[in-house]
Amino acid sequence: MKAGVLFSGGKDSALAALLLSPFTKVELVTVSFGIIPNDAATLAQILGFHHVMISLEKELAMTSIDTMINDGYPNRGLNQVHKTALERAAECYPVVADGTRRDDKAPLLTLQEARSFEDRMHIDYIRPLLGYGRRTIDGLAAELLDFIYGECISFDYEVELRQLMESSYGRKTVNRVFPKRHLQSKVTGRKNANFRVAEA
Amino acid sequence: MKAGVLFSGGKDSALAALLLSPFTKVELVTVSFGIIPNDAATLAQILGFHHVMISLEKELAMTSIDTMINDGYPNRGLNQVHKTALERAAECYPVVADGTRRDDKAPLLTLQEARSFEDRMHIDYIRPLLGYGRRTIDGLAAELLDFIYGECISFDYEVELRQLMESSYGRKTVNRVFPKRHLQSKVTGRKNANFRVAEA
Repeated sequence: MKAGVLFSGGKDSALAALLLSPFTKVELVTVSFGIIPNDAATLAQILGFHHVMISLEKELAMTSIDTMINDGYPNRGLNQVHKTALERAAECYPVVADGTRRDDKAPLLTLQEARSFEDRMHIDYIRPLLGYGRRTIDGLAAELLDFIYGECISFDYEVELRQLMESSYGRKTVNRVFPKRHLQSKVTGRKNANFRVAEA
Repeated sequence: MKAGVLFSGGKDSALAALLLSPFTKVELVTVSFGIIPNDAATLAQILGFHHVMISLEKELAMTSIDTMINDGYPNRGLNQVHKTALERAAECYPVVADGTRRDDKAPLLTLQEARSFEDRMHIDYIRPLLGYGRRTIDGLAAELLDFIYGECISFDYEVELRQLMESSYGRKTVNRVFPKRHLQSKVTGRKNANFRVAEA
């Protein structure tokens, strides 16, 4: 089996890929609105994985932004985009994975949504980090990856949606909808290769 | 870090151990009431892991059986035993893991119970299979493990509790509380070693 792992450049999605890699062939998939240029392909190469870009339509970004503004918080809008990203990846891979974690709030599919996604798209959906708490993930990431922290430095949808919301509706709207700080991790390298990546 | 993985002899707990093994030192931990003799140590050796037995008191078995009989179904009683088993393992290991899956009903800790367990016992609790659906797990297990299916052939608490309930309250009570069939898997070997187990 070959798994397409959604890759935002952050430590969680990189760790999800590493956890799968001894057992299945892994490709990193970056889904993007093309609003902000990204170095996902370079990072994937550093991590030792093939990389694929998938583009999402700006219309989806605007719909998701409308949802966020109506709700007054970003979770539901982020989930809309994440579900679409998963579906696009599911058109290309028999197994789709992401870096969502036990302690995440959004994006995060419910149990029913995860099952429905698998049944509807005839794929296997794996969330390698779902059984891990935040502290465990941070420890494991520190052991296996080099990464930095900063404001809006990864290339997940949230960064793009914030920027598009700001250019369309102004900074005040962004500040009302999103939390003030958006500290993100970004991988810069791989520390430890004392396990073997499975052959295709 | 060293993880103690609860091991019932079934494919799920064996697979949970295998998924962790490239990243951390793993020991298999079989928690038992001592009601039925088991070959857990031999199976662990076949899988290539150290093995530890932990005994639970018969009083807990009787309490759990009372809960099941009062409830008319086994879930809450099984969860009581599973939580105690996890706590006993947490006294011996900084990281505790089990083979509970996304699609399981019992034993299965809720998100709040999992967090509380970590905070209370100062350990990391990992459920490697929580992000995997049943079909994915069956596929991965078939790739990595040899196993058989049969009625009550593994040595999890359920088999022991059924037997103790039958000897204490008769078969009619067992048939009222538990589902008729209890098809279980039991590992018999390891198929694929094309990944390297991490050093301690």
